[in-house]
Amino acid sequence: MKNMERTLVANTPKNVGQKVKIAGSVNVVRSHGKIAFIDLIDRSGIVQVVGGEDIASLKPQWAVEIEGTVKARPERMFNKKIETGEIEIEATKVKVLVKSDEMPFDMGAEDLNLELPTLLDYRALTLKHPKQREIFRVQANVARGFREVAESLDCLEVFTPTIAASATEGGAEVFKVDYYGNDAFLVQSPQLYKQIMVGVYERVYLFSHAYRSEPSVTTRHLSEVVQMDCEFSFIESFDELLDYLEEVGTGMIKKAAEYSKKEMEMLGAEKPLIPTKVPRLTLREAQEKLAEIRGTERRYDPDLTPEDEKDICAWAKKEHKSDFVTITHFPTKKRAFYTMPDPKDPEFSLSYDILFRGLEIASGSQRINDYEELIAAMKGRGLDPKNFEMYLQAFKYGIPPEGGFSYGLERVTMKLLGLSNVREASLFPRDVERVDFRFNR
Amino acid sequence: MKNMERTLVANTPKNVGQKVKIAGSVNVVRSHGKIAFIDLIDRSGIVQVVGGEDIASLKPQWAVEIEGTVKARPERMFNKKIETGEIEIEATKVKVLVKSDEMPFDMGAEDLNLELPTLLDYRALTLKHPKQREIFRVQANVARGFREVAESLDCLEVFTPTIAASATEGGAEVFKVDYYGNDAFLVQSPQLYKQIMVGVYERVYLFSHAYRSEPSVTTRHLSEVVQMDCEFSFIESFDELLDYLEEVGTGMIKKAAEYSKKEMEMLGAEKPLIPTKVPRLTLREAQEKLAEIRGTERRYDPDLTPEDEKDICAWAKKEHKSDFVTITHFPTKKRAFYTMPDPKDPEFSLSYDILFRGLEIASGSQRINDYEELIAAMKGRGLDPKNFEMYLQAFKYGIPPEGGFSYGLERVTMKLLGLSNVREASLFPRDVERVDFRFNR
Repeated sequence: MKNMERTLVANTPKNVGQKVKIAGSVNVVRSHGKIAFIDLIDRSGIVQVVGGEDIASLKPQWAVEIEGTVKARPERMFNKKIETGEIEIEATKVKVLVKSDEMPFDMGAEDLNLELPTLLDYRALTLKHPKQREIFRVQANVARGFREVAESLDCLEVFTPTIAASATEGGAEVFKVDYYGNDAFLVQSPQLYKQIMVGVYERVYLFSHAYRSEPSVTTRHLSEVVQMDCEFSFIESFDELLDYLEEVGTGMIKKAAEYSKKEMEMLGAEKPLIPTKVPRLTLREAQEKLAEIRGTERRYDPDLTPEDEKDICAWAKKEHKSDFVTITHFPTKKRAFYTMPDPKDPEFSLSYDILFRGLEIASGSQRINDYEELIAAMKGRGLDPKNFEMYLQAFKYGIPPEGGFSYGLERVTMKLLGLSNVREASLFPRDVERVDFRFNR
Repeated sequence: MKNMERTLVANTPKNVGQKVKIAGSVNVVRSHGKIAFIDLIDRSGIVQVVGGEDIASLKPQWAVEIEGTVKARPERMFNKKIETGEIEIEATKVKVLVKSDEMPFDMGAEDLNLELPTLLDYRALTLKHPKQREIFRVQANVARGFREVAESLDCLEVFTPTIAASATEGGAEVFKVDYYGNDAFLVQSPQLYKQIMVGVYERVYLFSHAYRSEPSVTTRHLSEVVQMDCEFSFIESFDELLDYLEEVGTGMIKKAAEYSKKEMEMLGAEKPLIPTKVPRLTLREAQEKLAEIRGTERRYDPDLTPEDEKDICAWAKKEHKSDFVTITHFPTKKRAFYTMPDPKDPEFSLSYDILFRGLEIASGSQRINDYEELIAAMKGRGLDPKNFEMYLQAFKYGIPPEGGFSYGLERVTMKLLGLSNVREASLFPRDVERVDFRFNR
């Protein structure tokens, strides 16, 4: 056995009549007296193995190495649900690599049907269920899609720190770190660093962890997320930024869906509706549209509510065949200090969110790039410029007109796959109640 | 001016005789009475602009937009040092986008020649110097190289958390986070999570931040680093892991050097020496070799000293024309609890480091994948299995034979470019003395 090369199960149909060695985890065991079947999973796919006692004695989740012959199945026995469904492996030698405890629930069922807390309490196990597993294959393709579009726009990948000397954007939602006896903080976003970087590389992109001490529990928030950021300088207009925002968002999701056809199908996820032109509304226009749709009074809230986001997306889908809608011009005082007020109406800002299937998946703005204005903006919010020295240094030495945005990896994954909670789109979600396990078990 | 499209400076030589609009930062101003020159930098490169008073009045680091005509230079005026050296732009219109403070040092000098603390104190500015800037273009190519090789080995990209419920590997070098009133910690490595993931995807790779509360100051350590990890399951032998280790390390560095030809040349970096077969020595063999080279007594230290690493690399370079050397079989008790002891001699472990140009750039091992053995190994080191519940859950439900490694992005960048301190290879290095600025200013 030692010298036989392993064949990935996806390649076994090419070897009908031949001996192969395969290795993987047992998914399901079906025993019928003297004859038994298992489904064996490896990184390439799934295959049926048939055998006698050796096979019958295996249990789910055991890791095994099997030598056997690839047999064509008779046509009436084809299993169209799996890609190797026209063959099976007749086992001649079975080696158990590692055993597993008995399963606390039916891992062979089409759906796990577990409550979210249980799904997460058994994360190391439940991730092995095909419907959980494929979520993160899609997530890898979301990341790949983002990277490809960002690079096509000439952005350079940079790596920025997550430990900072002060709260990135002010506010109380920040985690404190004991840093050699000094106070330090986990970044609420890589915002300040990526802005510094456009002074050097003009256009950058990055994957960063971002942390929010968010004491409330919602289906959309996590305490630690993966952010996908772009930042562009030498922009000539606000519209140019909106173009980049939409190109990255729709491009990333289009690519992710294309790269994940099989997984999306298996998870029953709908293909994203990507229009030639993403509809753009100012916050006020969106609120007017909502009043019109609902036949209610216009409400001038400072932001869209979760309900508003759903309804305006439903409108965009119906009227523009678009799963995306861009909302601009949020009230200046509701956005972070670095957001540029609209010169035409400084009460509103050159800011934007992009919504996808009823949820904000990215946020951004044109930034104040004048040093003095930036200091004034900080002071206007009670922030001490002393806490932003490295950041301000960049502006002292000339940062051109610029802006950018940040997509949330988990949120994009969640909405692309139609998941109902962002926790399902995070391998090991962190929130107020949980780091791996719930605190109050 | 508004409707004229911007041309990247690298493309201007294709437009001789034509009007163009360019934008970028002023690097150097040379004024000669009525005629003045600037070097203008954008993301694509550098170009000389000539003009009158408009140009003479510009200052270094100002961001400008310039309209002008592309003129071929007479051959004797060619500047072979820059790619646009056969042309210059005759400015007809100059628009200042943003001004800059006066420079505290000569940013136009070929080298900045600053002490490291000053280089870092002015990070937002010094990064703009070409020799600083190009370091991180190379770093992006290191990351790209790693990703490409990892994907060619069928690894899936995963995203793991940095906030953990307990210290990843035990030990005191861990940063504590106040997590909603609970104690949490910044991961010392993504180790435990990536091991869980090979139970799901067989092979994974990831970029992760890793944190070490390292109170000593060396040229090789940072408190926050970017780690590039791979983990492989269903391995058939320890040698298979060494093959992956070397394929990823040499492949990544080869690709990075190829993608960064221009930058490497500009920084005077030597092309890496990559042998067909990386020399492999056990720790004991390396120590014997060192004694032989030095003509001293054999020393059986539990690890190589920094001096040893330099000398053994010098040996590999001389004898094997290799910038790489792999060291295996470190003492079991010096490696983390999850490291598999060598069944043939359990005092030593199935562990390895890879050295590159005198420095360890990656570390890894085959892992204990048997649940009971793992618990025994934890207890043997005084670790409480209760603190590793999620991790142990994975092994309870069957993790096949596996192992992996972790490359340090900053260290690879440092040694590829011949930098003398790892801080130069980190955009914003964190150590015991500094988060952006030194604590004791």
